[in-house]
Amino acid sequence: MRKNWSLEAIKPISARIEKQLRQIVGEDNFSRQKEDRVCYAYDATRRYCVPEAVVFPENADQVGRILDLASKHGFPVTPRGAGSGMSGGAVAVAHGLIMAMSRFDRIVEIDADNFIGIVQPGVVTGTFQRAVQEHGLLYPPDPSSADFSTLGGNLAECAGGARAVKYGVTRDYVLGLEAVLPTGEIIRTGVQTAKGVVGYDLTRLLVGSEGTLGVITEVTLRLLPQPETVKTLSAVFGSMQQAAQCVVEILRQKIVPRAVEYMDKHAIACVESYLQEGAGKDAEAMLLIEADGTHPEAEEALRRIVGVLEENNAGHIEVARTEEAVQSLWKARKAISPALYTYGPDKINEDIVVPRSRLPEMVDFIGRLGEKTGLTMVSFGHAGDGNIHFNIMYDKASPEQSVAASQAVEEIFDYTLALGGTISGEHGVGIAKAPYMSREIRPETLALMKRIKSAFDPAGILNPGKMLL
Amino acid sequence: MRKNWSLEAIKPISARIEKQLRQIVGEDNFSRQKEDRVCYAYDATRRYCVPEAVVFPENADQVGRILDLASKHGFPVTPRGAGSGMSGGAVAVAHGLIMAMSRFDRIVEIDADNFIGIVQPGVVTGTFQRAVQEHGLLYPPDPSSADFSTLGGNLAECAGGARAVKYGVTRDYVLGLEAVLPTGEIIRTGVQTAKGVVGYDLTRLLVGSEGTLGVITEVTLRLLPQPETVKTLSAVFGSMQQAAQCVVEILRQKIVPRAVEYMDKHAIACVESYLQEGAGKDAEAMLLIEADGTHPEAEEALRRIVGVLEENNAGHIEVARTEEAVQSLWKARKAISPALYTYGPDKINEDIVVPRSRLPEMVDFIGRLGEKTGLTMVSFGHAGDGNIHFNIMYDKASPEQSVAASQAVEEIFDYTLALGGTISGEHGVGIAKAPYMSREIRPETLALMKRIKSAFDPAGILNPGKMLL
Repeated sequence: MRKNWSLEAIKPISARIEKQLRQIVGEDNFSRQKEDRVCYAYDATRRYCVPEAVVFPENADQVGRILDLASKHGFPVTPRGAGSGMSGGAVAVAHGLIMAMSRFDRIVEIDADNFIGIVQPGVVTGTFQRAVQEHGLLYPPDPSSADFSTLGGNLAECAGGARAVKYGVTRDYVLGLEAVLPTGEIIRTGVQTAKGVVGYDLTRLLVGSEGTLGVITEVTLRLLPQPETVKTLSAVFGSMQQAAQCVVEILRQKIVPRAVEYMDKHAIACVESYLQEGAGKDAEAMLLIEADGTHPEAEEALRRIVGVLEENNAGHIEVARTEEAVQSLWKARKAISPALYTYGPDKINEDIVVPRSRLPEMVDFIGRLGEKTGLTMVSFGHAGDGNIHFNIMYDKASPEQSVAASQAVEEIFDYTLALGGTISGEHGVGIAKAPYMSREIRPETLALMKRIKSAFDPAGILNPGKMLL
Repeated sequence: MRKNWSLEAIKPISARIEKQLRQIVGEDNFSRQKEDRVCYAYDATRRYCVPEAVVFPENADQVGRILDLASKHGFPVTPRGAGSGMSGGAVAVAHGLIMAMSRFDRIVEIDADNFIGIVQPGVVTGTFQRAVQEHGLLYPPDPSSADFSTLGGNLAECAGGARAVKYGVTRDYVLGLEAVLPTGEIIRTGVQTAKGVVGYDLTRLLVGSEGTLGVITEVTLRLLPQPETVKTLSAVFGSMQQAAQCVVEILRQKIVPRAVEYMDKHAIACVESYLQEGAGKDAEAMLLIEADGTHPEAEEALRRIVGVLEENNAGHIEVARTEEAVQSLWKARKAISPALYTYGPDKINEDIVVPRSRLPEMVDFIGRLGEKTGLTMVSFGHAGDGNIHFNIMYDKASPEQSVAASQAVEEIFDYTLALGGTISGEHGVGIAKAPYMSREIRPETLALMKRIKSAFDPAGILNPGKMLL
C-alpha cells in the first residue's frame, strides 16, 4: 500500500502560498512570528515541534479554502484545540501549518426542549458544561482537562473522563457534525434528532479520528437532564489490591455509580495538600465514588456502596457533606497528572483499559513491575471503567532508566492485551502510541484504516505522522 | 466517480463457482433448490427478488472464503438475518448469492461482572434479551421485531425501538465486532472494555452500514443492570395534537421515561382486539408510557408523568397493574405494523424523525395531507424520540392512488427535513429510501460515502443496489 500520508511528500509553505493564506483569513489571522509558532508547538505530552506558520480560520468556508490549498500544494495542516492532548495529536510533527480553532468559540444554541446543544469546536468543555447546566441539562463527558480542553479536541480524541462508568464517553453524545474534508469540501454528518440511520455513520468515524480525517467546524451534542442530586464519598484502603477488589464488587452487585476513581499511594502523596484532614493521607489506596439521580435513588446507591465498602476492607469512609468537600476531592483527583513530576523529570503516561474484573490482576502486575525495575510507578484513574492512568517516572538522562521504562511499557501493553484490554481508553494514539498500534490492531484492520484515510485525504496533508504510520 | 457497486459489473454464479462454494461450506450448506431460493427472496417490505443460490456459512473463515471468491469472480452476495427488515436490506436485488447467517446462532458468553455479552449475529434479539435477563442484565435496544429479528440484522440497520428515549439505539451498545470484509479478510474492531480509542471507529461505521461494508460474524455488546422495576401506563386523548403536545411537555419537564409510544386512531382501531376494555378504544390518540429504575425512582416518575397527563388534556389514564395488562398494551403496539393491511392492499411505510418539540407540527401536517389526498394515513411510533412510523395505505392497482401516495411521501420528507429531521430513524435506507437519500445527504457527503464503500468493497460485490445508488 502506498504510504500516502507519510512525511515524504510534505512540502514547505512558500511565500506564494503564504500570500494566499493571508488572503483567505485576513492579515490578523495568519502568523509566521516565532513567538506565535512557539506557542503552538507543544501539547500535554511535552513533545515539541515548531510549525512553519499558524492560521486562525473564522468559519468553515475559510477552513475549506485552506485545506483545498494544502491538498493542492502538499503542505501539512495540523488542527489544534487547546493543546491539552495526552498523545501528541496537536503537535505538528511534519511542521507546516497549525490550524488553531480558537475563533470557533460560539455556543450556537442550547435547545432545552430537545436536549441538544449546537456548538463550535473551540468552546472549552467546562464552559459548555456550565452553560447547559443553566438550562437544567447535563453534558456528561468530563475529561480531567475539562476546564481548559475544547470540545473539538475532546471529539477528535473521543475523550472519556470520570463519569463514563454510568454515562459513556464523548462519542455517545455526538449526534451530528459539520466538518471540512482534507480536500476542502464541507460535509454534514448525522442528525439533530434522537435517532437517525441515513447513510454511513460518518459522525462516529470522525469522532476519535484525531484530526486526521477532517476538521470539525460545528457539533450537535446530545444532552441529558441534570440529575437531581450527586453524592460523593471517599474511602481509603490498606492496599491497592483491596481497593481494586472493592470496585469489582460494587459493580458485581449491579450498582452503577457515575464515577469510581482510584489513586494509589504515590498519586495520593503528590496531591495530599488538596485533601482534607483524614481524607486519604498515608493510605495505600483511595477510592472516590459518586452516585447521582433522584434524591431517593442517589441515597439508596450511597447506602449500598457504603455497605460494599464496609464489607470489603475499606478503612475510613467519608461522605462529602459540603460542596467544598466535594470540590477538594475532585481538585485532588484532577491535579494528579501535572503533579506527578515531583517524582522525576520525565514520565511515560499510559492510558490502558482492562475489563474491570481484571483490575486486581493488573494492580498486582504493576506492583511487581515496580519492584523489578526499581522505577516509581504511579497509577490512578477511572477504576469503574477499568481505565488505568499508569505513569512510569524516570530520568531521560539515565540510559538505564530509559531502557527499563520503555521495557516496562511494552510489558504493560502485552499484559493489558492478554487480559482482553486496550492500550488507549481515552487519550488516543497520536504519536505517543503509534509505534504500539500494531500490537492491538491486526494488519488487515490497519490496512483498512489506511484505505479509509486515503478515501478522506488522498494527498495525506491532514495531521500527518499520527496514528497510522 | 466510478459507480463500482452498481449492478453493471455483476456476474452470475457459474457451475465452477458453485462447486467451489459447495467445497467451502459443505453440500448441506449450499442450495440452488427453488424452494430455498424463494424462502430467501423477500423481507418485511414485501419486495421480492429470487437469488441464484443460498449459502449457510458456519464460521468466519467460510464467510471469508466465500467473499474472496465473490470479489474475484464478481458475483453479488447479500447477507441476511431473519429477513424482517423494513427497507429491503436483505433482498437480493442483484440476484447472486444470499448468505444466510442462521448458523451463527450461539451466545458465546455473558460476562455479568463486566456487563458485556459476546454473541453471534444469527441469535434472535429476544432470545438474547431473555438470556441476559437471567443474569440480572438488560440489553436495551428493543425493536418491535425483537421476537424474530436477529442481532446481526439489528446491527446492520442500527435498529432502535421503544426504549431509545432513555437508552439510545443499537449503536450505543456495540463495543466491538468481528467482521469479514468484502475482499475476504477477517477484521476485529473495537474493544471488549468500557472505553477504547485505538484507531478509527470501524465498529460504528459497520453498524448501520446495512450489510454493504462487511459481514458481521461476532458482536461484543455492552449491557446494563436490569432496572428494579418498570411502570407502564396508557392514556387516551381527544386529538393527536393533544397527545403530541403532551409528549413535548413530559420531556420539557425533564422527565425521561424509558418509552413514550403513540398510536393514532387508525392504529388503535386495527389492534383494538389486543386492548383491554376502556384502554384506548374509540380514542383519537393514545400514549403508552413506561418509566423504569429503582422502586422510588420509577414511582416518582410515574407520579410526575400522571401529573403532566392530567394537566394536558389526557382522558382515561390507566396504570397497568398486572403483567398481563402490560403485555396486552405492548402486544397491541407491536402488532400495528403487520395489522395495517386491513386498510388497504398496499402501504408505504415511513420512519421519519423530527426534533420531538416539532411533533405537534408534524401531526398537523399529516392530518392535512390525509384530507388533501383522501388516502388513509396511519401514524404511530416512538413519540419520545420524535420517531414517527407513518403509513400511507393505498391500492397499487389504482394509478390515481399510487401517484397521490408517492407525492405524499415526497411532501412528508420535505417537511421532515425542513423541521430539522431525518427520513429514517431506524429502518435504514436499503432500497426503500435510496431514491430519496440525496434529499437529506449533501453531494459531497454522498461522494465520501461512496469512496468509503470502495475502500471496503472495491469489486462492489457486497449487497449491491442498496443505500448508495
